[in-house]
Amino acid sequence: MVPQGLFILSIESPWVRVVSESKLPPNLTTFTVTPVADSYHDALDELPCDETTILQFENELKGQMADTSDTLTHNSITALLSSKFRDIQKRLKQYGIEAPKFRKRLVSKWESLNYDICENVLRMEMEMEMEMEMDFDQCAKDDCLYLPVFMWMGMNLVITCLASLLVTFLNQKAAGSGIPLIKAYLNGVKIPGLLSFKCFIAKSVGVVLSILGGLFCGKEGPMAHSGGIIAAGLGKGRIRLCKGKGISLYDGFRNDHEIRDFVAGGAAAGVSAAFGAPVGGTLFSLEEAASFWNQDLTWRVFFGAMISTFFTNFLLGAFHGHATELSSPGLVRFNVFDNDLKFDLIEIPVFVVMAVVGGVLGASFVVLNYKLTVFRQRFLRNNWLKVIEAGVVAMVSALLAFILMVVVDDCTATKPFGNNTVTARMHCKPGEHHGLSNLFLNTPEGCLKSLLHDPYESHSPASLAVFTVALYFLSVWTYGLSVSSGVFIPSLATGAAWGRLVGMGVVDMLPGLTHLSGDFGKYALIGAASQIGGNLRTTISLTVIIVECTGDISFGLPIMIVLMISKWVGDFITTGLYDMNIEVMGIPIIPFEAPPLVDDIRASEVMTSPLIGFRPKEKVGQIIDILKTENMCGFPITEMPEDEPGRVKLKGLILREQLIVILKKKIFAPEGLPQPKNITIADFRNFYPLYLKIKDIAISEEERDYMIDLRPFYNPTPHTIEKTFSLPKVFNVFRGLGLRHLIVTDDKLTPLGMITRKDLAKFRAGTKRGLVKIEHLKIEDN
Amino acid sequence: MVPQGLFILSIESPWVRVVSESKLPPNLTTFTVTPVADSYHDALDELPCDETTILQFENELKGQMADTSDTLTHNSITALLSSKFRDIQKRLKQYGIEAPKFRKRLVSKWESLNYDICENVLRMEMEMEMEMEMDFDQCAKDDCLYLPVFMWMGMNLVITCLASLLVTFLNQKAAGSGIPLIKAYLNGVKIPGLLSFKCFIAKSVGVVLSILGGLFCGKEGPMAHSGGIIAAGLGKGRIRLCKGKGISLYDGFRNDHEIRDFVAGGAAAGVSAAFGAPVGGTLFSLEEAASFWNQDLTWRVFFGAMISTFFTNFLLGAFHGHATELSSPGLVRFNVFDNDLKFDLIEIPVFVVMAVVGGVLGASFVVLNYKLTVFRQRFLRNNWLKVIEAGVVAMVSALLAFILMVVVDDCTATKPFGNNTVTARMHCKPGEHHGLSNLFLNTPEGCLKSLLHDPYESHSPASLAVFTVALYFLSVWTYGLSVSSGVFIPSLATGAAWGRLVGMGVVDMLPGLTHLSGDFGKYALIGAASQIGGNLRTTISLTVIIVECTGDISFGLPIMIVLMISKWVGDFITTGLYDMNIEVMGIPIIPFEAPPLVDDIRASEVMTSPLIGFRPKEKVGQIIDILKTENMCGFPITEMPEDEPGRVKLKGLILREQLIVILKKKIFAPEGLPQPKNITIADFRNFYPLYLKIKDIAISEEERDYMIDLRPFYNPTPHTIEKTFSLPKVFNVFRGLGLRHLIVTDDKLTPLGMITRKDLAKFRAGTKRGLVKIEHLKIEDN
Repeated sequence: MVPQGLFILSIESPWVRVVSESKLPPNLTTFTVTPVADSYHDALDELPCDETTILQFENELKGQMADTSDTLTHNSITALLSSKFRDIQKRLKQYGIEAPKFRKRLVSKWESLNYDICENVLRMEMEMEMEMEMDFDQCAKDDCLYLPVFMWMGMNLVITCLASLLVTFLNQKAAGSGIPLIKAYLNGVKIPGLLSFKCFIAKSVGVVLSILGGLFCGKEGPMAHSGGIIAAGLGKGRIRLCKGKGISLYDGFRNDHEIRDFVAGGAAAGVSAAFGAPVGGTLFSLEEAASFWNQDLTWRVFFGAMISTFFTNFLLGAFHGHATELSSPGLVRFNVFDNDLKFDLIEIPVFVVMAVVGGVLGASFVVLNYKLTVFRQRFLRNNWLKVIEAGVVAMVSALLAFILMVVVDDCTATKPFGNNTVTARMHCKPGEHHGLSNLFLNTPEGCLKSLLHDPYESHSPASLAVFTVALYFLSVWTYGLSVSSGVFIPSLATGAAWGRLVGMGVVDMLPGLTHLSGDFGKYALIGAASQIGGNLRTTISLTVIIVECTGDISFGLPIMIVLMISKWVGDFITTGLYDMNIEVMGIPIIPFEAPPLVDDIRASEVMTSPLIGFRPKEKVGQIIDILKTENMCGFPITEMPEDEPGRVKLKGLILREQLIVILKKKIFAPEGLPQPKNITIADFRNFYPLYLKIKDIAISEEERDYMIDLRPFYNPTPHTIEKTFSLPKVFNVFRGLGLRHLIVTDDKLTPLGMITRKDLAKFRAGTKRGLVKIEHLKIEDN
Repeated sequence: MVPQGLFILSIESPWVRVVSESKLPPNLTTFTVTPVADSYHDALDELPCDETTILQFENELKGQMADTSDTLTHNSITALLSSKFRDIQKRLKQYGIEAPKFRKRLVSKWESLNYDICENVLRMEMEMEMEMEMDFDQCAKDDCLYLPVFMWMGMNLVITCLASLLVTFLNQKAAGSGIPLIKAYLNGVKIPGLLSFKCFIAKSVGVVLSILGGLFCGKEGPMAHSGGIIAAGLGKGRIRLCKGKGISLYDGFRNDHEIRDFVAGGAAAGVSAAFGAPVGGTLFSLEEAASFWNQDLTWRVFFGAMISTFFTNFLLGAFHGHATELSSPGLVRFNVFDNDLKFDLIEIPVFVVMAVVGGVLGASFVVLNYKLTVFRQRFLRNNWLKVIEAGVVAMVSALLAFILMVVVDDCTATKPFGNNTVTARMHCKPGEHHGLSNLFLNTPEGCLKSLLHDPYESHSPASLAVFTVALYFLSVWTYGLSVSSGVFIPSLATGAAWGRLVGMGVVDMLPGLTHLSGDFGKYALIGAASQIGGNLRTTISLTVIIVECTGDISFGLPIMIVLMISKWVGDFITTGLYDMNIEVMGIPIIPFEAPPLVDDIRASEVMTSPLIGFRPKEKVGQIIDILKTENMCGFPITEMPEDEPGRVKLKGLILREQLIVILKKKIFAPEGLPQPKNITIADFRNFYPLYLKIKDIAISEEERDYMIDLRPFYNPTPHTIEKTFSLPKVFNVFRGLGLRHLIVTDDKLTPLGMITRKDLAKFRAGTKRGLVKIEHLKIEDN
């Protein structure tokens, strides 16, 4: 049976729940899904679904019931919706004076929106059961549980498929966390479409849908990516109205270098907004991207991150109705430990063991996800298959959660901590609630907070173990789907779950330590740090982010140690998740340092040769032909002096982009005539970032014989190295100077070849079970 | 008259104070110097100098008085001291059970040690006065105030002179904050003696003495320097027993590059320990030193900083008797604002104005200190004069403080905030205390905390104004004395003083804002940030340090804005304090970026030429001669191929240090004979950092004709640039690759000259009143 409150509940449940309850026989103890009051802001501001409020509303609602009950019996969705809107209007008017409270409630409901529906279905079912005094197993046999499961799975399926459709058909670059791609972009790889408006829509709307769709994923990676896109868009200073037309506001930043700085700042701002961690965000951007320490850039990025944190804080505050309080610096904060976190030296070994476990679990996460990704790349190439996979994951997530909620016995009367915690009674006694359901029915962030802060008795060890396993495998499966989804929060939550389990074990085994392990949520925190350290292997920024999120510097040391050890352990087995992503996608990024064991390789063995270049005065036809056949981005300018026969002299370096713009503006003339000069720096900028293609340049047959004088344009002092330079030294020069083209010469400065990013990226070192492996990749243009 | 308790008071005052009090006529209201209870840890743990305790001790002490009073009347110091020791022993036994409390008390007393003495003298004087019902001015006329003043000045004089003697005669590199020198060292300048053990003693003991001597200085800079020295010592892995002898533990880090990394870490650890700010300390090290972003190094530095913070916390906690509490992460923390700091948008303009004021005050601080430093360099070259100046400053500080304490009327009954706050009654009514005296009689850190946290009524505007002016000029005068002294805390305190004044003005002028400016200590914080921003001009690390110290991320934005504006304003007028120091000391550091307006300067105009080099096989005599006459640290290896007459071919680069070690180990042979091979990498390391001088190498006349084959030793791929490279590009290569020698070649790779640090450091850009000025310095070797 479909309960009448179903669709109404999907938007604003507490009152409608009352509607349903009022229809039940009064002797029944009702199963309530009670959002716990927002203990952050004002513990007294209770939601109106407690008993007194129910009584207060009952009479009023009974009158209303008379109108709607007949339509309800028809199960007509239209009628239900229209009655719902009347209801909402009424409520809004009534609660106009308490608007902030109402909004707050709406927010907390909205976050766990689709769960409520199923939850309510579930509740109805159980009420029926209780009325009939049947036991739970009996019901399962009688298939009376099928409906809520299908409802839940259906909701997840529809929303997740929407999320996946958006990403799959709008811009596939928006899939996943986005951080690997941003990292590759900041490393210097051009990724078409990564910073496009379409990608922004797919990413930002997509992540809302994937979380709504009940996938086990976070929104932090996508926020970093979205931040980067916004920053790049601002940097370009142009409003594009339609193809080729637009308003140009400023063009000073229109080159790769500047836009890259903008993206670094945007990504930092995104991370800061997510965690309320401006310093962590800045360091994140540095750790993932920087090769130079650039004072000014760091300051700007930091300033941006601080502004971002401030405005997140301000807007969240304003949304909750107290803009000036500035008490919600980020979307994910867990700085609400009752007292400062302390630890005893005896606990350090426990932390170390946890870090090792985290490292192993993280590495196996990476391995499993790697296998899955390879499988997907091979067999799930069709776009529709991708959408279907996302839908399947969403349904399985719901189904598994439901089964576990029904099967696992985890009743507790302990009041949970919290902000957005949703308590569900399931088959527990009156006054109790089901601990595992709290975790499954919560938002990912709420689940993390529950695990960190709930009192000791809130979750049974069995339910934590089950939850860990379920969450672990579901998050492995979820990451890499064709939806916009981050991996931060699932990693943290998985770690917090088994960390909490360890904490309970420690408390049980060492009862003498209870005075120290009073707030044993620290074990959950350490577990979370271990797991994310094992998954991601970023250390500096992650430490700072977690310290900023907990707001406790004294506890920074154990977190740091744990992150370091889990990184070591993980690195011994496999690379980190993001690096694995980059590897699987085949993106040529240049590592921080040369791989080991390449000291004997010389520049001359790495370079691309023979070198194709131009003379300082070159024929238009020659340039066109070379640009069409070669796909290099930079060309040397060489000269053969008449007084030194046989010598090739390096004069400079010119970029493909420059040449195309010069050709487009027709800066050439027949031999002997003066060359037109009507080209400015703005002309070069104007085509950024959508450079013209050489095939779009129309050059007549006559013009092919004209001459271009390249001397005003090329860079007369390109960086060069001798062919005997070793590969580590080449790496050093390349990264240290931030180059894209490095010309290799002989001992007389005769250019022999060129080293570009691709030549260096083809050396890839992997560690596998402690052994170093050097791969020599073949990189092809596409 | 000398009061009997005088010298006893200097070590442990509360009980002795009771001694004195018990002798006074009972109708007198005594003037008590009461250390306020340590509100951090346990507000209930009151010191035993309150009334009940006094009564409790009175009888016991009266008996004791009988023994000592006769010796006391002799004013015999020996007798006093011996009675003191008896007293202490007794107390220790008595308080054995309360050891933590006792220690805590001892600490808080020790910090304000020398003030207590004078304070007590003062008190005695005033009691006398009151007894005689004379007014204060009358007393001043009758010279009855001369004694306490002289006592105070004398104490300051003696201790400060000790501090100055230590620095002046042990190692003058220990003078000042040490941060400019550490910055220069990390930039790549070799500063003899900077990292010596003597310097460590002078620095670390010296700073204790200078603070004890009542100078207005901080201990943060010296802590960074000391941290750097310790790290360098650990890095070298050698215990030096006497000249030339020692135990070598490991030698893997014995080169400039590694030791520099160690020093960066040590400095970061020092800053972290001072402020309890591990992230801030790490960023400090990066901001002052790094040119590369080095992932591994940053992580190590951060780890060191975290460990440092942890152990400071642990040891301070243990010292206070609650090691596991970990509640004192740094020596200077001001994170005890009652509630989170909030700010209204209306307040931003006020903050901006304060930032401008801070910038101007900071810039004038730099200018005044610059003039003073130049004066000192010209006229105070004698070591004894330096000691005398330090003594004079100490005496003037005491005298000025005393005069102001007597003259300024600043009585208040408001209980001050705090930890180490010392309240003094002076000439106030019973139950009141003198606000200005609290500031002067406190430790610099305590003074800062008072200014940040004291309630509104604690200090009158007049006294704050007077205090600001006094502190400002005294700290200008103090910084640069030949003592170990930092400038962080005086800057913060000065800023906090005038910031508080502004805050009081805002509260008075905008009474409507009281709900926002309830904690108007934020104005003091903003003032402190403005002032230190104006003085030092470091932005990134300072923001993070202040945010970590206040523990409030939401308030990070205004602090950041203020620091940025005060830096802009200050930079418009003059360089920062540390840069001014470096400039005045004539240390050639290479800035982050090339100075402006040098785009037209080519490498060939900057390089040192002609180039003096060696052949791959060179005569010993030739090498000796060149090493003796030239003071370069690197020499090119060149060859003239026989098949190409007239061509000079660059083969590599060899360092002076390498050559000297090769000569020392006699790795040469007569022409035609094989060269000995008994030299290892350890031989090169072994002489670090005290390299041999060329004049210490004994080479016989016969050996001068032997040949050295340099081929196994030189670097075959030195970095080169063409002579047409512009100066900004040269800067880029130099900093980006962390070079010390860059060979300039013509377009056939023929070496023409060499660019070293000195060639680049001679271009110095200064901004003066918004105009850029490029100086071309002449750098000489000494």
